[in-house]
Amino acid sequence: MSIRYIGQKLAQHIDDELMSASGAFSLDQLMELAGLSCAQALAKAYAPTTHRRVLVCCGPGNQGGDGLVAARHLHHFAYTPTIYYPKPGAKELYSRLVRQARNLDIEVLGPDADFGQALAQADVVLDAIFGFSFQPPVRAPFDRVLDLLAAAPTPIVSVDIPSGWGVEAGRQPLYAADPAAPDSKGRTVATLDPEVLVSLTAPKEGVREFKGRHYLGGRFVPDALAAKYELNLPTYPGTDQVVELDAGHAKL
Amino acid sequence: MSIRYIGQKLAQHIDDELMSASGAFSLDQLMELAGLSCAQALAKAYAPTTHRRVLVCCGPGNQGGDGLVAARHLHHFAYTPTIYYPKPGAKELYSRLVRQARNLDIEVLGPDADFGQALAQADVVLDAIFGFSFQPPVRAPFDRVLDLLAAAPTPIVSVDIPSGWGVEAGRQPLYAADPAAPDSKGRTVATLDPEVLVSLTAPKEGVREFKGRHYLGGRFVPDALAAKYELNLPTYPGTDQVVELDAGHAKL
Repeated sequence: MSIRYIGQKLAQHIDDELMSASGAFSLDQLMELAGLSCAQALAKAYAPTTHRRVLVCCGPGNQGGDGLVAARHLHHFAYTPTIYYPKPGAKELYSRLVRQARNLDIEVLGPDADFGQALAQADVVLDAIFGFSFQPPVRAPFDRVLDLLAAAPTPIVSVDIPSGWGVEAGRQPLYAADPAAPDSKGRTVATLDPEVLVSLTAPKEGVREFKGRHYLGGRFVPDALAAKYELNLPTYPGTDQVVELDAGHAKL
Repeated sequence: MSIRYIGQKLAQHIDDELMSASGAFSLDQLMELAGLSCAQALAKAYAPTTHRRVLVCCGPGNQGGDGLVAARHLHHFAYTPTIYYPKPGAKELYSRLVRQARNLDIEVLGPDADFGQALAQADVVLDAIFGFSFQPPVRAPFDRVLDLLAAAPTPIVSVDIPSGWGVEAGRQPLYAADPAAPDSKGRTVATLDPEVLVSLTAPKEGVREFKGRHYLGGRFVPDALAAKYELNLPTYPGTDQVVELDAGHAKL
């Protein structure tokens, strides 16, 4: 039985179910565990001795929140993270997560920061920009951010779906929204090719063809929920919050 | 520099500071990480192959909440936990944590359960009854529970302070409150001698003389807070949520 690759709608549904009255999880809990998974996966792929400086790129939604949590854990794991968070989301939780990061002296870069310079100083990037609810087009400033990430030699660890890939359609050139003419599709955004992917809860359809190291995180899915949606989740080792998907798991 | 053993007042103060506006942590977050630490420490000391059945004894306060979280993670770590929770606390979070456990088919025993029978069927006990805010006397039903735990051959993993020990005074016989005469000190409660201790955030003064395996958990204390209170925390290994305190750490 191979692991199931899920679509956008089911991913959203599972998330909703976990946080429903019957699932009983709070966003604080799930984000803490998801972010910890991301930090652990990065640590498995890149040691702090060789890749100390981590640029954590956070989008405006819940995946950005996972990134904020991951940055905090990476600090405790002996990395030196920098957070790039140009469009902070509105939820109160996000501002608390930023505060927690600042309390560790983690630098938090806003919209006026020089992203190119921050990228040049990083040993590895955690891409927590777009998650399973992403809908194109890619809006500023992330169009330029993706272009710079794609052009840089810095290895990338993407969360759930490489930012810019279709959640179901996968690796493909996407269009950037032109602020001067929102309907224009005049410019494509460069496509990311991360070395490492951390799928949360279950991998998404768009990453079927992903060729790099692939981890699964989110060791909190109830067995009954996994059975109901036939997720066929693999066994996590020991007390790890991530499991690496090998060929036997990752291929259908 | 040896790790600092902290008193009841400072333990409470650090907890308050973490959850203050400036600390910015929610109880959901801290309890999730604390409970995960407890589950990981138990897993380091007792493998699920030899100690599958874990009786998680939860008190009415926040330490009971840590126990509820730990039970959930233990389930995911391939143990079969049973929760004993005779006096559920009032916080809404606790009822959600119980629900999350029930969603994994973890049995939750209430005040009418036969504790002795549950104990007889367990391979190891996680003692999350009383934490750093404990004040004697020990009230029913926990007086009888401590007597049964102390008499049983089952190994015990205690969280923060072995239940019944003084948070500062340490290992000593404590008095049970007699429901018929609350001021009476007519009966002492048996003293627990756990094999394993998981101190959260920093060890408490009462466990200086603890002789078993001693883990520290709570890998979320900001460096500035640790420095301010001269906690002299040890370095956690890898991405672990616990660190074992050896002779060099544990002795002053």
